[in-house]
Amino acid sequence: MAITIDLAFAFHMERPTDVLLQFEAAMIPEQRLLETDTWVTKGEHFARIPAQDSIGDRVWIRAEGRYDVNYNATVAVGRMPADVAGLERLHPHELPGEAVQYLFDSRYCPADRFQQFVEAEFGSLEGGARIAAIEEWIAGSFSYVPGSSTPNTTALDSFIERRGICRDYAHVMVMLARASGIPARFVSCFAPDVTPQDFHAVAEVFLTDPTTPGGGAWFLVDATRMARADEIVKIGVGRDAADVSFMTSFGPATFIEKTVSVERDSNRPAADRHPGE
Amino acid sequence: MAITIDLAFAFHMERPTDVLLQFEAAMIPEQRLLETDTWVTKGEHFARIPAQDSIGDRVWIRAEGRYDVNYNATVAVGRMPADVAGLERLHPHELPGEAVQYLFDSRYCPADRFQQFVEAEFGSLEGGARIAAIEEWIAGSFSYVPGSSTPNTTALDSFIERRGICRDYAHVMVMLARASGIPARFVSCFAPDVTPQDFHAVAEVFLTDPTTPGGGAWFLVDATRMARADEIVKIGVGRDAADVSFMTSFGPATFIEKTVSVERDSNRPAADRHPGE
Amino acid sequence: MAITIDLAFAFHMERPTDVLLQFEAAMIPEQRLLETDTWVTKGEHFARIPAQDSIGDRVWIRAEGRYDVNYNATVAVGRMPADVAGLERLHPHELPGEAVQYLFDSRYCPADRFQQFVEAEFGSLEGGARIAAIEEWIAGSFSYVPGSSTPNTTALDSFIERRGICRDYAHVMVMLARASGIPARFVSCFAPDVTPQDFHAVAEVFLTDPTTPGGGAWFLVDATRMARADEIVKIGVGRDAADVSFMTSFGPATFIEKTVSVERDSNRPAADRHPGE
Amino acid sequence: MAITIDLAFAFHMERPTDVLLQFEAAMIPEQRLLETDTWVTKGEHFARIPAQDSIGDRVWIRAEGRYDVNYNATVAVGRMPADVAGLERLHPHELPGEAVQYLFDSRYCPADRFQQFVEAEFGSLEGGARIAAIEEWIAGSFSYVPGSSTPNTTALDSFIERRGICRDYAHVMVMLARASGIPARFVSCFAPDVTPQDFHAVAEVFLTDPTTPGGGAWFLVDATRMARADEIVKIGVGRDAADVSFMTSFGPATFIEKTVSVERDSNRPAADRHPGE
Repeated sequence: MAITIDLAFAFHMERPTDVLLQFEAAMIPEQRLLETDTWVTKGEHFARIPAQDSIGDRVWIRAEGRYDVNYNATVAVGRMPADVAGLERLHPHELPGEAVQYLFDSRYCPADRFQQFVEAEFGSLEGGARIAAIEEWIAGSFSYVPGSSTPNTTALDSFIERRGICRDYAHVMVMLARASGIPARFVSCFAPDVTPQDFHAVAEVFLTDPTTPGGGAWFLVDATRMARADEIVKIGVGRDAADVSFMTSFGPATFIEKTVSVERDSNRPAADRHPGE
Repeated sequence: MAITIDLAFAFHMERPTDVLLQFEAAMIPEQRLLETDTWVTKGEHFARIPAQDSIGDRVWIRAEGRYDVNYNATVAVGRMPADVAGLERLHPHELPGEAVQYLFDSRYCPADRFQQFVEAEFGSLEGGARIAAIEEWIAGSFSYVPGSSTPNTTALDSFIERRGICRDYAHVMVMLARASGIPARFVSCFAPDVTPQDFHAVAEVFLTDPTTPGGGAWFLVDATRMARADEIVKIGVGRDAADVSFMTSFGPATFIEKTVSVERDSNRPAADRHPGE
Repeated sequence: MAITIDLAFAFHMERPTDVLLQFEAAMIPEQRLLETDTWVTKGEHFARIPAQDSIGDRVWIRAEGRYDVNYNATVAVGRMPADVAGLERLHPHELPGEAVQYLFDSRYCPADRFQQFVEAEFGSLEGGARIAAIEEWIAGSFSYVPGSSTPNTTALDSFIERRGICRDYAHVMVMLARASGIPARFVSCFAPDVTPQDFHAVAEVFLTDPTTPGGGAWFLVDATRMARADEIVKIGVGRDAADVSFMTSFGPATFIEKTVSVERDSNRPAADRHPGE
Repeated sequence: MAITIDLAFAFHMERPTDVLLQFEAAMIPEQRLLETDTWVTKGEHFARIPAQDSIGDRVWIRAEGRYDVNYNATVAVGRMPADVAGLERLHPHELPGEAVQYLFDSRYCPADRFQQFVEAEFGSLEGGARIAAIEEWIAGSFSYVPGSSTPNTTALDSFIERRGICRDYAHVMVMLARASGIPARFVSCFAPDVTPQDFHAVAEVFLTDPTTPGGGAWFLVDATRMARADEIVKIGVGRDAADVSFMTSFGPATFIEKTVSVERDSNRPAADRHPGE
C-alpha cells in the first residue's frame, strides 16, 4: 500500500531559539520512500541527527520569527500485517540487548506498578495472545475523547480515567505489555483513517513468529483500531511520547497551525487489504 | 587512583526465573580493570549483553533456588576531576545524537515540569555554573536519610520532601539539569567513602570544557558529596534508576543478603588527592 | 456482643511537643461502654475535644520524654448487621447536610477520577447492590499485604497495585462509593479477628433501608472481611485516614511500641453469630 | 464597604439530574446582606441545606433541560483588614475542636509532605509572621496564568510548576500553613478587582490577635493580592476546592455560560480604603 502524506505546520519564536523536530517518514526497510520533499523556513541552523534506534531523523533548528515546515511524501509500506495473537514471547533471558531498554519503566509508563493487574486479568495468557487480550481490553474499556488528556497525562492516569487519545491508548498498551515482561515501544506515525487527521501514535511489541526462523521482531498494535500495520508510516520510535514529540522547543515558541493529510495513493489498487482485519 | 571492590549478594527463586543483573565495573577508557573476577552460581542460563550506551554489560541469568554472585575487581580510575563550574553548555542544536535522549523526561525525572523553577532559581547562570549552583542547592537543602524513599519515589517526590538517598540526590540533579536544557544521565557506580557501604549513584551531565578542543563530554556530579570523580568506578548509565538496577527479576525472587566493600588500594599512594575538592 | 479491648502504646518526645490522640471507643448509641479506663503519663497538658461528627473524642496532649497510653474497655455493641445488598440509595438531592461532605474527594480518595470506572464496571447496579458488588470486587481483586503501603499511599495507588492493608481496602471502598454518588466515610475501629491484632479500619456508606421508616443511615462495610458490623467498636470517623490517625505529632516524636488485644467477652454467649457471614 | 454582585450562569441537562450549587453570599456576622435576590429555573426539586461550618447554604436542585441561575446581592462587609504579620499562633493543643480538621491533609493539599520545606524556608518565623512570609513567597514566586491548571491540579502540582489561578494560590497557602501546624481553610468568595471577573478563592488561617481578648479567629489571606479582606464577600468555606465548588453535577451536565460582576457600591464612599494595602 502506498500512502501519501501532506504535512504543514508553523510556529513563532520571539528570539533565536533551538527547536528539535521529528516529522518525516523514516527510511527503514519496511517502508520505501517513493517521493519526499521537506521545505522549511531558512533559519540560523538546520542539522539532522539519527533518532532513537536509528529509526528516522531528528532535526535541530535554530531560528527566530515565524518558522514554517512543509513536508510531502509518498511511501510504499511493505510491512505485512501479522495476527498478533499467534505470536510467541521470547523469555526475557533470550532478549537481545537492544530490546532490553523497552522492558523498563519510562516517563509515561510506570509498568512496574501494574504487575498485579496484568497477572490477575491476563495471567492465563502469554506472548501474542496476551497482547491481543490487552488490546481488546483497552479497545473495549476506553473512550476516545479528544481534549481529555494533557502532555502530562501518564498511562497510569489514562488507566484510571479510561479515556484519552491515540497517545494515551499507545501508552497504556506499552505499559501493560512491559508489565507482562514483553518489550514495548511507542511509535509516532502517519496513517490514513485517523479521525480527525493528525499525527498518530501506536505501540510496538517485541515478539517472535513461530512459523518463521530467526529471533524476535517488532510488531505494531493499535488499540484505537484506527490504523492497520500495512498502512502505518513510521516517523520514529521511543520509550514513550517523551522521546518522539514532533516539536520540542528549548525556549518560548508559539504554535500557530498544523494541517495533516494522509491518504492511500489512488493510483494503486487497494486490493491487498485484508478483509479479516 | 586504584579502587578495590568486593561484592557479594544472594537471592532465592522458588522456580526457574529470569533475572537481569548489572553489577560489574564497566570496561571503558576512563577506568582500566587491573583484576576482575566474577563468580556466580551455575544456573540454566548465563549471557552477557551490552548495557546502555555500550557502557558495561547486563547479564541475563535463568536459574532456580539460591543464587550467589561474588565479584572482586581492582580498577585504575584515570578520570580527572573537573571543576564543573568552569564548564560551558552546548546549545541544544549543537548536541550530538547520542546526548539528545538525555534531554527528555524519564520515569523518575519529570524535568519538563521544573522549567519555571530552574528559571526562577538559577536563571542568571548557564552551563557548568548552573550545574554547580544546582549541586550546591541540593547539597544544602536535602537531608540524606536512609529508608526515606522507596523504589517508586520520583525526583519530584524527593524535591518536595527534600530528603532521600544517593539515588534520589542523583535523580534530582538529573531532573534539574534537563529542565535547564543540559543532557543528564544516571550513573550506577562504586566509590569508597560511601556510608554505609553500598552501590552508589551519581549524575553525569553533558558539557564542554572551553580549554580543550573537541565537542562535549560527560562530567560526573555527586550532590551527596560522598564520591569524587577520580575515585568513581562506573557500572552503567541510564536515563534514571529504572535503567541500571543491579538486579531486576522477571518473576518472584527473594533477596537474601548483600555486602559491598570499596577501598582505595593500599599499595598505591593517595598523594594525588586534590585538596581543594 | 460485648468486646474487650486492651491497648497500650508509648512514644518519646525529646522536647515539649503537642500530640493529638484518638484511640478510645466512642460513646454513641450503637455501642455502650460497660467499663472503660484510660491511663496516660502525666504531662503538661491533657484535654478532650469532640472528634469529627461528634463521634468519639480527640485528645490533645503536650508532654516531654516517654509518654505511655494504656486503655482498657468493655463495649456492648448493639449494632445489627445489615444485608448491604438490600439497601437503597438516596438520590443526592435527598441527602441531609451532614452527609454531603462525604460525597467529596478527600486526601486519599480522589473519587472524581473513577466515575468512568464505576459506570463501566458497576453501572447496572444501584445503591446497596452496587456497594455489595464493589465490596466483592475489592475482596476478590486485592491482596492483603502488610507493609505494602505507606502513610502516603492513596486509594488510587491501591487501586493500581491491588494490594494493601485495612486502611487501603477502606480507602478504595470509600472512593468507589463516592464515585457512585453514595456518601462514604472512613471508620477507625477495634474488632476481634483482625490479624495481626491492631487498630482496624473499615468504610461506612450512607444508604436507606426500604423496610424501615425514616431517612438514610450509615452502614459499615469491610472489604477485608475481617470484621462483622455487630462486633466493630468505632473509635472515630472521617473523610479518610487523614482525619482519624490514632496519633498525630506536631513535632518530632519517636514511636516506641504498641500492643492491641481485642476479644469477645468470654462471659457472654457468642450464640448470636451469623453463620452465613 | 458595600459590594454589589451580579451573577448569572446556565447549564443544560439532557435528563433529570441532581446538581449541588453554592453561589450565594453567606449570611454571617461579618457581612450583612442589604439586598439579595436569587432566581432559578423552576425544576423538579429545590432545597437548601447548611454548608460547611454553617457558613452559607448549599442548594440541591433536580431538573432537566436548560437551567438558569441569576443572583444579585448588595453586601455590607464589616470585616476589618488585619495585619496578619502581627498575629500569633495558638499551640496545637490550644485549638478548639472545630479548627482541628483544618490541620489535616485534604484532597488538593497534601500538607504533610511539606514539613521539611516550611521548616527549611520559614523555620525562624512563627504564627502570623510565618503566614506573611509564605504569602510573600507565593506572591513573588508564582505566575498567575489562566488556563494553566485543571480541576485535578493539586497544591503539590502548583508548588512544582509555580503558576496557577486563584484556586491554586489559595491551595498552596492552605497547604503550607497546615504544614506549619496552623489551621487553614479554603474560602470561595466574591471580590471586586478580580481580573478577569469571576468567582474568587482565598485562604483563611486560624490565628489569634494578641491585642484583643479571646481565643483564635479566622483571618483571610490572598496570595494573588487581588482582594482585600474588607471587600471579600464569602460564599462558603471548606478544606479545599473539593468542598466549595459552585456547581457539582451528579450526572451529565453541559455548562453553557457564566457572567460575574462584582463592584463597590457607587453610593458609598471608598474613603475607608487603606492606602498601605
